[in-house]
Amino acid sequence: MQPQKKLINSVDSCVDEAVCGLVRANGGLSLLKGHRVVLRSDLENLRGKVALLSGGGSGHEPAHGGYVGAGMLSAAVAGGVFASPPPASILAAILSLYNAGASGVLLIVKNYTGDRLNFGLAAEQARNHGVAVDMVIVAEDCAFDRPSKAGRRGLCGTVLIHKLAGALAQEGCSLDQIVSKVTEVLKGIGTLGVSLSPCSVPGCLPSFVLPPGDMELGLGIHGEPGIKRSKVGFADEVVKTMLDHMTNPDSQSHLPLKSGDRVVVCVNNLGALSCLEMAIVARAAVICLENRGVEVARVMSGSFMTSLEMTGVSLTLMKANQETLRLFDAKTSAPAWPNLSSVCVTGRSYITDPPATSTRPQEDTYTEGPLSPVMRQVLQMICSTLLDKQEELNSLDRAAGDGDCGNTHAQAAKVIQEWLQDHVIPGCPGQLLSVLARLVQEKMGGSSGALYSLFLTAAAGHVTETQSNAAAWASAVHAGTQAMRRYGGADPGDRTMVRDLLCHFHSTFHALQNSEYTKSFSSFLKATLGAEETRNLTAKAGRASYIAAERITLPDPGAVAVAAILRAVVEVLEAQK
Amino acid sequence: MQPQKKLINSVDSCVDEAVCGLVRANGGLSLLKGHRVVLRSDLENLRGKVALLSGGGSGHEPAHGGYVGAGMLSAAVAGGVFASPPPASILAAILSLYNAGASGVLLIVKNYTGDRLNFGLAAEQARNHGVAVDMVIVAEDCAFDRPSKAGRRGLCGTVLIHKLAGALAQEGCSLDQIVSKVTEVLKGIGTLGVSLSPCSVPGCLPSFVLPPGDMELGLGIHGEPGIKRSKVGFADEVVKTMLDHMTNPDSQSHLPLKSGDRVVVCVNNLGALSCLEMAIVARAAVICLENRGVEVARVMSGSFMTSLEMTGVSLTLMKANQETLRLFDAKTSAPAWPNLSSVCVTGRSYITDPPATSTRPQEDTYTEGPLSPVMRQVLQMICSTLLDKQEELNSLDRAAGDGDCGNTHAQAAKVIQEWLQDHVIPGCPGQLLSVLARLVQEKMGGSSGALYSLFLTAAAGHVTETQSNAAAWASAVHAGTQAMRRYGGADPGDRTMVRDLLCHFHSTFHALQNSEYTKSFSSFLKATLGAEETRNLTAKAGRASYIAAERITLPDPGAVAVAAILRAVVEVLEAQK
Repeated sequence: MQPQKKLINSVDSCVDEAVCGLVRANGGLSLLKGHRVVLRSDLENLRGKVALLSGGGSGHEPAHGGYVGAGMLSAAVAGGVFASPPPASILAAILSLYNAGASGVLLIVKNYTGDRLNFGLAAEQARNHGVAVDMVIVAEDCAFDRPSKAGRRGLCGTVLIHKLAGALAQEGCSLDQIVSKVTEVLKGIGTLGVSLSPCSVPGCLPSFVLPPGDMELGLGIHGEPGIKRSKVGFADEVVKTMLDHMTNPDSQSHLPLKSGDRVVVCVNNLGALSCLEMAIVARAAVICLENRGVEVARVMSGSFMTSLEMTGVSLTLMKANQETLRLFDAKTSAPAWPNLSSVCVTGRSYITDPPATSTRPQEDTYTEGPLSPVMRQVLQMICSTLLDKQEELNSLDRAAGDGDCGNTHAQAAKVIQEWLQDHVIPGCPGQLLSVLARLVQEKMGGSSGALYSLFLTAAAGHVTETQSNAAAWASAVHAGTQAMRRYGGADPGDRTMVRDLLCHFHSTFHALQNSEYTKSFSSFLKATLGAEETRNLTAKAGRASYIAAERITLPDPGAVAVAAILRAVVEVLEAQK
Repeated sequence: MQPQKKLINSVDSCVDEAVCGLVRANGGLSLLKGHRVVLRSDLENLRGKVALLSGGGSGHEPAHGGYVGAGMLSAAVAGGVFASPPPASILAAILSLYNAGASGVLLIVKNYTGDRLNFGLAAEQARNHGVAVDMVIVAEDCAFDRPSKAGRRGLCGTVLIHKLAGALAQEGCSLDQIVSKVTEVLKGIGTLGVSLSPCSVPGCLPSFVLPPGDMELGLGIHGEPGIKRSKVGFADEVVKTMLDHMTNPDSQSHLPLKSGDRVVVCVNNLGALSCLEMAIVARAAVICLENRGVEVARVMSGSFMTSLEMTGVSLTLMKANQETLRLFDAKTSAPAWPNLSSVCVTGRSYITDPPATSTRPQEDTYTEGPLSPVMRQVLQMICSTLLDKQEELNSLDRAAGDGDCGNTHAQAAKVIQEWLQDHVIPGCPGQLLSVLARLVQEKMGGSSGALYSLFLTAAAGHVTETQSNAAAWASAVHAGTQAMRRYGGADPGDRTMVRDLLCHFHSTFHALQNSEYTKSFSSFLKATLGAEETRNLTAKAGRASYIAAERITLPDPGAVAVAAILRAVVEVLEAQK
């Protein structure tokens, strides 16, 4: 078994390069020379304020460097992948902040033994340098009913502490005030994760094995064991299980949550869950909490505290009062903080009624006119022709497409036949074209349906009850073919239905206009022959463009269908003479 | 072969639920009843302005709903996964914006046949309703040297068009002005993707197969075929290949880019690439462009136009002038737009020098004092003792840990021995403790190194040249044990080195203080016995807490080491009497 191939340059350089990439990409960040420390590039703005420092192993990006900025962290120290940073770098970061004039430095540390020790050591050393340092340890994991002596792990809730402490520091609070407020907030934070896959440290095998289709509840962000394995369930059920477990009073590490409480929810992508699934989880969390009578004040959803490429998600709940929300909503320049709205999630109206303007023509109010009988005859002829040709079109389509060209045209024909049975034909041809556009769009489907509908819709505006001579029809056909050409992306010479419609339908009507029907039949024949000509053209647009040219020896089924429609139209019109 | 298990409720409901999740989570968004349309919830602010509508198949989240907000899109329409949205929903969205008083509606459409047709059809229908509609088609894929007639595909560059057009609309530009400016900008945008894995539509098998360790260049965002397969290369080389291909003048779809040009770079996660790798790619892109003399004005890095859970990344370059950058930097409330700095990436100084305050004590300037000889003797004794006990400690550690406790202590002993050879012992005991703290931290490593160093660092401040009586030593030991207790997270009664240090080392020195050395030896013996007592305690902190209690029958090796150190100290001190 080989370690998974990653998009890196080397195992040894990956952390340094990632830290460098973060700093280079963000104008507000700076790199402390000789250390994996990301600093605010405007350190001068720390003068007289409390500076905030966090950090930990790499592999949790954007934590913690992405949270450096005004209103959040002043600096972040990165260790190797999943390894605590060295005390010397932590101390260098503390002293940089102190030298910039910070009145004190607060260390925000996730509860992992290595981080506690290394940050603790740097804190003691900094004290020996005369720096006022304090530490808050984030330990908000809700996984274990009986946590070990090492305590609850520090997870994504850390990011919320970055935000609140950052806002307090920005406001000018003292070190003691910040520690005291943040310690209070920490009591109301809980996190639980679920994962559908392990992750692997660069150059290493995955930290554990999880069979496809299984999930594990309560994993740590380094792939430490969770509490339960099961088959992947429905998103709503998984979320409910997570929230139930997080708030179960029988567990020593539960978050006490009751109806009427107000919370901020963080839906955190552990690495590789699709954004589609993330949104589904966010919805489930909001609904599940609301069903318990909990007021969801804010939701943040995205990648905040990842575990490399773990396919999973964690939910963090933070109980919130007005003060907490004010701090949560405060402005920050940290690049990884999302662009959030400060409108309360629960209780707001989020449904907009569709436009009053009906999108369906008032088909019941149409009145017949002199052209209605001939238009009915034309439509009937078109429909019967397309039904007759269903198998021929399917057969042609099997050579270059998916073999359903006849079926889709037959489907349209049947729908139009049904419509004809219980509707009058409006005297205004444009109204009829709009009806046909709707029927074809709704029932025919696919690219063919869209193209026909596009033609009919664009043409509709050009022929009215009072303006339906050959010139009007010619401009309607012109408008229709232009729209197909524009949106369909095909020009004359491309081997598609469009090309044929464009060249031959248009020229047929042009002929009708010029010769008062006399030359129409010969024009029509030309159109029919046009379909045969497509055999010699290389397909350039539409699905057939994916088929090698040498395989195309038959006429294009779309063109044959159009020719058949034209023939039907001409046949009825000729019979009128 | 089974379709991949996803965190959804059902294949049929996943898109509706994802759209709902997005809207519920973001206070600035609203859902158009009966459609998969996300609208700004403040439609009233569109009055008199051009509204922007985009959309397309789902599975590309946060595109496009995440870009709805003031300064970006007014609305977004979602189709099924990788399927174009129905024209009826597009039309409903257009009419909603029109009814809200928008002066016109601009459709921003990615160049895919289905989207062109369906948005085109809705546009034509909207025109029949009297709406001023226009469309820009984004087609910025740089994959194919000779693009098919269907043209270049629309990819992540679409997001940049959302941003620029959104800023123009917000400023009150007319529909024509926006179309004209955006059309100009489009000529200077290019995108190319690379992927290390396929993705799969919910309920379906992956769209293609890519063996582990292979990558494909130039894929579409639905997994359409790319241009080249190869083994996964080094990140820097992959990025260079991508940028070379994108700007190769021999390709019809290249982006003309020369030295001196200024660009915005978008590093887009196609779904499941780790954030660590993303940052490495961002770094590579910036450096590679700068090496060609291109000025990188801005970098945005994150998930902007995904392909479900595809493990890959795309790079988008947009040539930028001052006007483009102004629009790019303009404020937006769209939830998926990142929190970017408006400082130019190229040319800024991003390295901060480490603090002038030295983190290493001035060891060369120490002067000896009356206590120096005895302290040297104590250290020599400690070192030889620990070296003698190396195998014994390793053997004890093999029972509950990783078997290197003796090695790590021996490593510390050797480093101290080396240091003793060419350094004087400072007369101030605190200075000596600081030196030892540094040596142990730098060379011993691991949790043991951190704990010893923590003890020594916290103790150092309490014993000076003038204050080194028993009382001073007692408070030094107290401070040291307190620090270990605080940061190490272990209390008396836990089975760890800390517990033993805490209880016995402290009480030993307490004894020294009270009895002027008389009771010290018996106290020491008690400490040694203490290590034996750990056999009866269940491990609660540190690594040994993961080992079942019944397997622990031997003394804790850390406690044995501490006892050995104490014995060495006492032995030398007793000999002094």
